[in-house]
Amino acid sequence: MNSFGKLFRISIFGESHGESVGIVIDGCPAGIPLNHSDFSADFSRRKSGAKGTTPRREADIPRIMSGVFNEHTTGAPIMIMFENSNTRSGDYRKLQHTPRPGHADFTANQKFGGFQDYRGGGHFSGRLTLGLVAAGVIAKKIILPMQVKGTILEVGGSSDVEAAIDRAVEQQDSIGGIVECRIREVPVALGEPFFDSVEAAMSHMVFSIPAIKGIEFGSGFQAAKMKGSEHNDNFVATDGTTETNYAGGINGGITNGNEILFRVAVKPTSSTHKTQHTMNMKSGKMENLSIEGRHDTCIALRVPVVVEAAAAIVMTDFMLQSQQIKRIHKPKTE
Amino acid sequence: MNSFGKLFRISIFGESHGESVGIVIDGCPAGIPLNHSDFSADFSRRKSGAKGTTPRREADIPRIMSGVFNEHTTGAPIMIMFENSNTRSGDYRKLQHTPRPGHADFTANQKFGGFQDYRGGGHFSGRLTLGLVAAGVIAKKIILPMQVKGTILEVGGSSDVEAAIDRAVEQQDSIGGIVECRIREVPVALGEPFFDSVEAAMSHMVFSIPAIKGIEFGSGFQAAKMKGSEHNDNFVATDGTTETNYAGGINGGITNGNEILFRVAVKPTSSTHKTQHTMNMKSGKMENLSIEGRHDTCIALRVPVVVEAAAAIVMTDFMLQSQQIKRIHKPKTE
Amino acid sequence: MNSFGKLFRISIFGESHGESVGIVIDGCPAGIPLNHSDFSADFSRRKSGAKGTTPRREADIPRIMSGVFNEHTTGAPIMIMFENSNTRSGDYRKLQHTPRPGHADFTANQKFGGFQDYRGGGHFSGRLTLGLVAAGVIAKKIILPMQVKGTILEVGGSSDVEAAIDRAVEQQDSIGGIVECRIREVPVALGEPFFDSVEAAMSHMVFSIPAIKGIEFGSGFQAAKMKGSEHNDNFVATDGTTETNYAGGINGGITNGNEILFRVAVKPTSSTHKTQHTMNMKSGKMENLSIEGRHDTCIALRVPVVVEAAAAIVMTDFMLQSQQIKRIHKPKTE
Amino acid sequence: MNSFGKLFRISIFGESHGESVGIVIDGCPAGIPLNHSDFSADFSRRKSGAKGTTPRREADIPRIMSGVFNEHTTGAPIMIMFENSNTRSGDYRKLQHTPRPGHADFTANQKFGGFQDYRGGGHFSGRLTLGLVAAGVIAKKIILPMQVKGTILEVGGSSDVEAAIDRAVEQQDSIGGIVECRIREVPVALGEPFFDSVEAAMSHMVFSIPAIKGIEFGSGFQAAKMKGSEHNDNFVATDGTTETNYAGGINGGITNGNEILFRVAVKPTSSTHKTQHTMNMKSGKMENLSIEGRHDTCIALRVPVVVEAAAAIVMTDFMLQSQQIKRIHKPKTE
Repeated sequence: MNSFGKLFRISIFGESHGESVGIVIDGCPAGIPLNHSDFSADFSRRKSGAKGTTPRREADIPRIMSGVFNEHTTGAPIMIMFENSNTRSGDYRKLQHTPRPGHADFTANQKFGGFQDYRGGGHFSGRLTLGLVAAGVIAKKIILPMQVKGTILEVGGSSDVEAAIDRAVEQQDSIGGIVECRIREVPVALGEPFFDSVEAAMSHMVFSIPAIKGIEFGSGFQAAKMKGSEHNDNFVATDGTTETNYAGGINGGITNGNEILFRVAVKPTSSTHKTQHTMNMKSGKMENLSIEGRHDTCIALRVPVVVEAAAAIVMTDFMLQSQQIKRIHKPKTE
Repeated sequence: MNSFGKLFRISIFGESHGESVGIVIDGCPAGIPLNHSDFSADFSRRKSGAKGTTPRREADIPRIMSGVFNEHTTGAPIMIMFENSNTRSGDYRKLQHTPRPGHADFTANQKFGGFQDYRGGGHFSGRLTLGLVAAGVIAKKIILPMQVKGTILEVGGSSDVEAAIDRAVEQQDSIGGIVECRIREVPVALGEPFFDSVEAAMSHMVFSIPAIKGIEFGSGFQAAKMKGSEHNDNFVATDGTTETNYAGGINGGITNGNEILFRVAVKPTSSTHKTQHTMNMKSGKMENLSIEGRHDTCIALRVPVVVEAAAAIVMTDFMLQSQQIKRIHKPKTE
Repeated sequence: MNSFGKLFRISIFGESHGESVGIVIDGCPAGIPLNHSDFSADFSRRKSGAKGTTPRREADIPRIMSGVFNEHTTGAPIMIMFENSNTRSGDYRKLQHTPRPGHADFTANQKFGGFQDYRGGGHFSGRLTLGLVAAGVIAKKIILPMQVKGTILEVGGSSDVEAAIDRAVEQQDSIGGIVECRIREVPVALGEPFFDSVEAAMSHMVFSIPAIKGIEFGSGFQAAKMKGSEHNDNFVATDGTTETNYAGGINGGITNGNEILFRVAVKPTSSTHKTQHTMNMKSGKMENLSIEGRHDTCIALRVPVVVEAAAAIVMTDFMLQSQQIKRIHKPKTE
Repeated sequence: MNSFGKLFRISIFGESHGESVGIVIDGCPAGIPLNHSDFSADFSRRKSGAKGTTPRREADIPRIMSGVFNEHTTGAPIMIMFENSNTRSGDYRKLQHTPRPGHADFTANQKFGGFQDYRGGGHFSGRLTLGLVAAGVIAKKIILPMQVKGTILEVGGSSDVEAAIDRAVEQQDSIGGIVECRIREVPVALGEPFFDSVEAAMSHMVFSIPAIKGIEFGSGFQAAKMKGSEHNDNFVATDGTTETNYAGGINGGITNGNEILFRVAVKPTSSTHKTQHTMNMKSGKMENLSIEGRHDTCIALRVPVVVEAAAAIVMTDFMLQSQQIKRIHKPKTE
């Protein structure tokens, strides 16, 4: 399904080249100040246009269609919609029978029997993350003073991001990257044992972002090479502060109050300007495939703000479940 | 919450040193042959006792308390329970105020206000995975001919598993490991875009297993260092077979019919025989902590069968959602 | 929350006098033909304007913003939106401190701390049922050949509906009514024992419709006065056909293939032109309240098509869960 | 599915003549005092044995298998199990091909393909309500000072309950009844608009109880015959107290602080000692059916405590969602 969350519940919709993309946010507490300008900073971080990102530029103007009144959330579902305008659908028609390697063309066709909107990746497009980022803007307000920060650690295996992008552009190829997310001022005791552990919920959400292929918390895969005596984080204060933070702020699925830390692996953009080989599903013959359209050289560059949104959404849901949010609305006085 | 799944839904319960651990399996199709001996092989793979695992040995005899009649599933919820017998609770009482580094002692105490069953890790114990393995035995039958296989790739950073265990035992320390899971004969088109992608559901489930700190699909973190032209898997047959499988059998969150492949990082067991330092939460002073009890040197050794169970449970749920399971029960004739 | 359903999942949003009302429909099978004209008949049955209904007339033009491509459903979420235009918000401002008897003014104010959109009932408005009816139009197509039919049985205690309305209009008062719903061509074995019984799911959905105060299945409250020997429906054919249908087509929560039959009680519209008494929540004094605005004399008249929609949505979800829907999409050929 | 609830989530299992019936309660706050004697009063109200109820008498001894430690809830799932002992399964075997009118024999057989446990109604048995009552005992403690009270209003159409039972026993027939439930000391603002309205959630839960055929809130079906000017409940105090309570304590799906009031219709027990007619599904011929076994003359007599449990469970879930439960556990002191 296209929804996520227990008490703070988001539902996304839309297609890259259809009428719109957007999101419905259900369970948002009433009384949170919200206006259009709140979205600008995060939208601009997500936006394409920088070196290494697609030249397609949408205005990305959020239309808040419900749930906000007098510039405050009302407690009713918030629907935020983005109408699509800058689409060039002609690029994609010919890909119907020659599924692009690394894309969802083949699986979407199998799942939806050819009825899917195949233009620009349709419902599978990274453009759908716009709704996530919008929900993230609201979630970040709810979880204050908790703070979420996503950054690029490396692209194409290099921490010199700019140089790596230049090289990839020159080679007309795409590259992946690693994004780190840190959450500070985390209340103790969020999350549940087992199926709603912080890791479980966070990874569920994060793998919903297109192009993510791995996630690790704290020491992550490195932990597999460590000894217990090294890996254990000694408690050094009665508030749960630990000397090290190999656990990434989570013990037994539950926050211990230290910084939450995780990293995600972003694969290289599937679309490249290089010629590729694929099966023509009608003729049963291999064909050369040259993808024109407009692509990101390194989609990872646009991921940090999306991961931040994902993390803020997950933490909001945990806070609501754990009754750690005071009713935000104080009865209005006059 | 302690439940997982949409149509094939499991709920776990129990404590390490309480009356029992167990599971309720709801949504299991009727008509699947099931008797006690079906569980033996997987239980024995999960069991402790081998070198590197705890000497605590429970009989692990499943009591099927509902949902099975005449050695077939009935379609009603299946409750399987394991009564605890071999417990030595005295070991744990003194840890209440001196939370063990790397354990859930501190977070559980914060979350449950001191009312949690702290004996042997209580509800956070790895013993709870017994129910998962039981559900996995049933799930594996449902998804046939799909097959799930978990294996140890390395422990303590070495692929010579036996030698690494010997070394750790000698050092009285614990070590982590990496477990790989492969799923074969996967139907095309399982999974959903976004929040119910195969990666999202699988990671959600897998992070419910204690001690897991990372998961990666296909090329995983390595993908972040690759180029698109290398990473894309070319389709070479009309059934979706690809030349390479860097995507781990999943495109756009949906199975493409190739092998599903993922790896998980298992941290070293938190309990070691080495003396550790921790805060005494009552006195506010650091103390030395020596954990006696019985521990696994390398819990990763017991994880493959649990990961298999997790994967089989996830695939069962997807198959039921995707209507790819023919009603298993054929009306009984006589 | 504002969503309902397991596999066919709807999420509603909007306010009576805000930007829009609408719905997101997730889990709709791909390949269902759909265009704007499909909605006309049901929208016009729901529309106001007839005697006994409010003179507020909205164009009720559905904007399909996602999930439909080339006039077929794509399998991705369908978002349908109705922009509000014909609103007269001045009517409602003064009601903020003098909650209307029978309305949600008081409870909404308590729940949302004064931040709710109070104009025209805001999110609590019957206008929100427009989205339900839209989803019902789609659901009715999915469940074919099953058919759902809602009718008015009586209003104001009389089966002469027209006369009763005339009388109420004359008295400047409002009246309630009883709506019956019948579902024909029902597959056997939909529904689950206990919490997802057909009665449980249907009543859950139906009580989401504003103004419903009761529901009964089959003989309903009359059953409480019957003897078992009268009430039991004898099976008279091997397909499950029964001689009578006091059970309303449901045994043990599961459809038996006979007609599903239920009735709902609709209370009189809370808004009337008569002067009422209420507490001024600021002054703590009773006040006279005269509600001007535009009201339905008998909201029950508009309920049958909404109940039909509700029933069709519930049956769709059961069919998807029970794997009784063949994949509607046949791979498109050309 | 066999589970219900968002944050206070119950899952039932078991069969009438199988190994056990029981329940798992997930999301119960930690720190609630609980011991075996807490269950006695409600179990004895539910128990059979009185005039008009089946002579089958089970000991109904709850085995608390998890989630309770030192006589307090721990916050982990509580599993409570009742082992079956007093079963006479021979009675039911012959009913397999001659489905009892009014029972789930036919629908269960269709749904589960003959694999269902048909003994004594199997999973469809009223015996499953034992788990609900157990969960209700706990829920009633959580919602204090809110109080739930279920009573019999009438049986067989008469408010002289004893006389009506005597008559039915004499006639060897069964009779239905009406049960009323009142909830006092209700916090304002529980429940949600639309799909999680108090009526929606309550009816969902209540229709899970076998033999319920109708539910009405406040004035219920009578509301359909009333005028708005009569039906509206005037607010007479700033705390939301109303002059009348036709709304049954709920406006717009949300509690207004007045007493919650609903009534349910219980059909006559399907099993009677009278000879009935039914189709032999193998031979395709009508047969006489005489049900021996042990039956309730009036199952409605045992329903009030089950409805109470249902209501308490629903209110608990709403309170947890609405953050109106202070963390019950206060850190244990010594």
